[in-house]
Amino acid sequence: MDIGTLLGYALGLGLITWSMAHNGINGLFLFVHGPAAAVVGGGSLAAVLIHFDLGTVKDLVRVILKNFLHKVPPPQEEIERIISYANLARRDGLLALETKLQEVKDPFFAKGVQLVIDGFAAETVKDIMILDAEVEKQRHAVGKKMLEQLGTFAPAFGMVETLIGLVQMLSNLSDPSKIGAGMAGALVGTFYGAFLANMVFLPMAGKLDIRAKEEYQRRELVIEGIAAIQSGEKPQLIKERLKGFLSPGQRKAIPA
Amino acid sequence: MDIGTLLGYALGLGLITWSMAHNGINGLFLFVHGPAAAVVGGGSLAAVLIHFDLGTVKDLVRVILKNFLHKVPPPQEEIERIISYANLARRDGLLALETKLQEVKDPFFAKGVQLVIDGFAAETVKDIMILDAEVEKQRHAVGKKMLEQLGTFAPAFGMVETLIGLVQMLSNLSDPSKIGAGMAGALVGTFYGAFLANMVFLPMAGKLDIRAKEEYQRRELVIEGIAAIQSGEKPQLIKERLKGFLSPGQRKAIPA
Amino acid sequence: MDIGTLLGYALGLGLITWSMAHNGINGLFLFVHGPAAAVVGGGSLAAVLIHFDLGTVKDLVRVILKNFLHKVPPPQEEIERIISYANLARRDGLLALETKLQEVKDPFFAKGVQLVIDGFAAETVKDIMILDAEVEKQRHAVGKKMLEQLGTFAPAFGMVETLIGLVQMLSNLSDPSKIGAGMAGALVGTFYGAFLANMVFLPMAGKLDIRAKEEYQRRELVIEGIAAIQSGEKPQLIKERLKGFLSPGQRKAIPA
Amino acid sequence: MDIGTLLGYALGLGLITWSMAHNGINGLFLFVHGPAAAVVGGGSLAAVLIHFDLGTVKDLVRVILKNFLHKVPPPQEEIERIISYANLARRDGLLALETKLQEVKDPFFAKGVQLVIDGFAAETVKDIMILDAEVEKQRHAVGKKMLEQLGTFAPAFGMVETLIGLVQMLSNLSDPSKIGAGMAGALVGTFYGAFLANMVFLPMAGKLDIRAKEEYQRRELVIEGIAAIQSGEKPQLIKERLKGFLSPGQRKAIPA
Amino acid sequence: MDIGTLLGYALGLGLITWSMAHNGINGLFLFVHGPAAAVVGGGSLAAVLIHFDLGTVKDLVRVILKNFLHKVPPPQEEIERIISYANLARRDGLLALETKLQEVKDPFFAKGVQLVIDGFAAETVKDIMILDAEVEKQRHAVGKKMLEQLGTFAPAFGMVETLIGLVQMLSNLSDPSKIGAGMAGALVGTFYGAFLANMVFLPMAGKLDIRAKEEYQRRELVIEGIAAIQSGEKPQLIKERLKGFLSPGQRKAIPA
Repeated sequence: MDIGTLLGYALGLGLITWSMAHNGINGLFLFVHGPAAAVVGGGSLAAVLIHFDLGTVKDLVRVILKNFLHKVPPPQEEIERIISYANLARRDGLLALETKLQEVKDPFFAKGVQLVIDGFAAETVKDIMILDAEVEKQRHAVGKKMLEQLGTFAPAFGMVETLIGLVQMLSNLSDPSKIGAGMAGALVGTFYGAFLANMVFLPMAGKLDIRAKEEYQRRELVIEGIAAIQSGEKPQLIKERLKGFLSPGQRKAIPA
Repeated sequence: MDIGTLLGYALGLGLITWSMAHNGINGLFLFVHGPAAAVVGGGSLAAVLIHFDLGTVKDLVRVILKNFLHKVPPPQEEIERIISYANLARRDGLLALETKLQEVKDPFFAKGVQLVIDGFAAETVKDIMILDAEVEKQRHAVGKKMLEQLGTFAPAFGMVETLIGLVQMLSNLSDPSKIGAGMAGALVGTFYGAFLANMVFLPMAGKLDIRAKEEYQRRELVIEGIAAIQSGEKPQLIKERLKGFLSPGQRKAIPA
Repeated sequence: MDIGTLLGYALGLGLITWSMAHNGINGLFLFVHGPAAAVVGGGSLAAVLIHFDLGTVKDLVRVILKNFLHKVPPPQEEIERIISYANLARRDGLLALETKLQEVKDPFFAKGVQLVIDGFAAETVKDIMILDAEVEKQRHAVGKKMLEQLGTFAPAFGMVETLIGLVQMLSNLSDPSKIGAGMAGALVGTFYGAFLANMVFLPMAGKLDIRAKEEYQRRELVIEGIAAIQSGEKPQLIKERLKGFLSPGQRKAIPA
Repeated sequence: MDIGTLLGYALGLGLITWSMAHNGINGLFLFVHGPAAAVVGGGSLAAVLIHFDLGTVKDLVRVILKNFLHKVPPPQEEIERIISYANLARRDGLLALETKLQEVKDPFFAKGVQLVIDGFAAETVKDIMILDAEVEKQRHAVGKKMLEQLGTFAPAFGMVETLIGLVQMLSNLSDPSKIGAGMAGALVGTFYGAFLANMVFLPMAGKLDIRAKEEYQRRELVIEGIAAIQSGEKPQLIKERLKGFLSPGQRKAIPA
Repeated sequence: MDIGTLLGYALGLGLITWSMAHNGINGLFLFVHGPAAAVVGGGSLAAVLIHFDLGTVKDLVRVILKNFLHKVPPPQEEIERIISYANLARRDGLLALETKLQEVKDPFFAKGVQLVIDGFAAETVKDIMILDAEVEKQRHAVGKKMLEQLGTFAPAFGMVETLIGLVQMLSNLSDPSKIGAGMAGALVGTFYGAFLANMVFLPMAGKLDIRAKEEYQRRELVIEGIAAIQSGEKPQLIKERLKGFLSPGQRKAIPA
């Protein structure tokens, strides 16, 4: 998980917890409410299960988690690695890349290098890699949409739970001492919904979108780089061409 | 009904029912309210009847139901069937397909095979099948829009019913013991609207959209496959071409 | 008024009235409120008068009414009539159409036939008819926008009236027995706004849009048909060409 | 101010005032509230000052006012004037237009005629006039956006004022007789916001948009007309060409 | 900070403060609330940190501040400067520009002049400058999006804080004298959210967008001007060409 996300969660959860507990630490128990958690969390999950395919939902939990745990390495590193491999391949031939294969941690990059070593035609290597990148891009797009749907459903089921609580409380006004607690319990549902949407689902959808764009950009860069290594292009030329895949800001960070 | 939808409804209905009943099973009766059901359900249906054509509304109930009961078979199966039919037709002629016709369950596929057997020109077969696919696509699009409209009208009529209940309750404050029950009853309208929109109409609109896209993609695949069978193309070539109709994810699942 | 709209209004008004009256028929009087009707109805009309031109508002009441009273005849009928007229014109000359003119009820079709009989050039006939169809299309578009604006303004002025009622009630709490009635009266404003928007304006905007598309499609068909009659085209060819103006669903209903 | 706007304001203000006063004319004083006027009116203006440039805000008050005070003359009049000037210029030369210059009230038209009299090249005359029309169009677009922003900010600051009033009232519950008046005062803020947005800013934004389109259309017509006068084109031909700038509805109002 | 923004903040803060204090200056203390400030301010910041990258958030505070402190100089000045430099360069050669370099305050303009003096090829100078302008444009776009997100998150966390306060207050109704103060405190959260969104974040996003467009337009003008100086074009021709980068309104302010 990148440091900004960590910082954001530490800050947000810390301050909200402080506000909940600032009348005494026992105040936190006011916000623990089983039925509210069941209706808001379970209801949102249920709506997403009906909306999307079961396989898609299962697949995407994995994709989203991976996305927050692994950080996209800066493209400068990738470009330097491609240049050094291109030099190696021009000097000692494409098979010499086999010795470097173990040090590559990114499976996408490794797959490309392996395909080159295996002697596939340039066109085939490119097609296979583009296919992989597109599959990943589609997953990210569905993941973003699912998080945005969760950000819509959570407040809606928060309201559903609050209405349930209010109906229960209002139907039993005979004991006035329970009115306050009843209303408080009912409002916890709305609180859960607003919290989940604005602290979890919507900001995560935003970050996933940013990460997906960075990731896809890096995929394109690697695809182009592998093609250049395979064709035996001059390293200096490769560098110039790969810089075209960077945003203006990133391009400035690379020495001409 | 596919397993994700079933799971979603089991989860959502289960947890919401549990929350409604967790003060005792009799608590469920608090949420049974004739006028609320009439205004929210009937009002939403009425608004949709005014908005859309009567024929369209009747037609679409059928389309939507069918869509949730029948699952789209995976395209891999379809491709394999097309390949085997192409082999048969190349070996024994197009008329030999007649023996296979009874085992085809999908009426769209069967219609195409029948047209080929009947000796229609390739162009005519294609035109008729595209027309059928477009009609179905239009129905799905209208169905999705209708479900989305229901997802907008249900909360609106929930509010209408709540306002009716509040006006009735507030006009008769002479018996304080009825205030709570009156307000509770009024809120059931809002509860119905929020529940119907977020548990039924909006997730169903989402699923219908996903199913419609899968269905149309499969229609295109069948149209192309029938054309290839009719033209006597080589089965291996057919396979390659049909893979172009698949999403990258599905394409990976088929052995080259 | 088509049967779907009638059914929708019968269902919606019936169920809502039942909910309002289910504590006794006198309960209906709770929802009769002069100032609320004045502010919600009059305020929405006033906002639309400021937004649009006076002439446009007056013109569109007529267009909208006509649209709900006259049903668009099915295009199959229109095609059959064009074919029969084309046969007549090929056999007996264009002037023979004069005998048929009285049986044509659609003034748009009649105008086209009259122009042909009067001997105008084909290009001129087409230009005049397209101009008429465009004018009508524009009116429908403005009508739809106006209904959508009414669907936005009605709930807003409902809230305005409710706020007026609440301020009046809260400023005079000295007689507690009037509090309930005051609040009930105030809420009737919100009720009127929600009812008008969701039962009247928004579904009518939807239906007007559907009708406008059907109407314009039929206008295009008639324009093309008149041109074909004038040019003395073969009836079978006319039929094929006119089918191109139909939606796939309608096309299937016509025998090849 | 055109009659529709006048009628709209008379109707809207009249009915809302009647609702506010229908418990007695003194009831109107309940809705006079200094701090609410300051926060809603001043806050909205402040937000617009921060959003837009100071010069733009000042300029646009003038543009908006002018727009509601001056009515766009019907294009038929403009076309007739252009035709008569074209006849004059063809008979007596371009300089003869000088005698007519004083009777032209529209400064845009007058500027064009003056440029022609001054002997500028046709291209230059057109460029200068197009520039003027574009400047005006931009002003109208910014004006519309500013009115829409005011329609968003007014209800927001209405809520801000209501929250201020509620906090003040709730912090001082010791005198129960002041609770009602306190809440009433607080709600006036929301009332001001809803009223300003729906009775003033949003309908005015709509009308400004309609007027801006009419005005720009007329500018184009005048530019084309001046060019035609300068080139000595035949009046009948000018008429036909200018009709191309009219909407279908307006075109029908001009005799061929 | 430009005068419109200053005026807007003075007006808005002044009137809102007056409304808060008009029952006595001590009334302002009712609106000071630590937990509300923590949850609304901190929560919004946290959500933005999760949504965007940490580096982006840090970078943009700087960009936004700079944007409100420095005013974009009017393009007329820039054009005059470019003309005078072009005259100098035509008379005394490009190196003569070195003497003027110190008087240029805009680092973008200075960088361009320096590149010309250093003898880089025209194409290279243009590419480097366009890259700089694009980087800045991207920053402004992300800054605008971040401010708009803050304008969405602030009211959401205002509601979160209000719900926390209500739950705390309702759970402890035993001391009725604290109910009012508890509710007042809870509402301060909603107040903070509405205030921050409508007085700070949303108008600032609007102004940033306007400034970004002005800034980018000026960058384009400078790039074109530097290219013209370098190519030794005639000053009068440069002026005509640079006017093409201005909006119609600005173009009118420059003497032909």
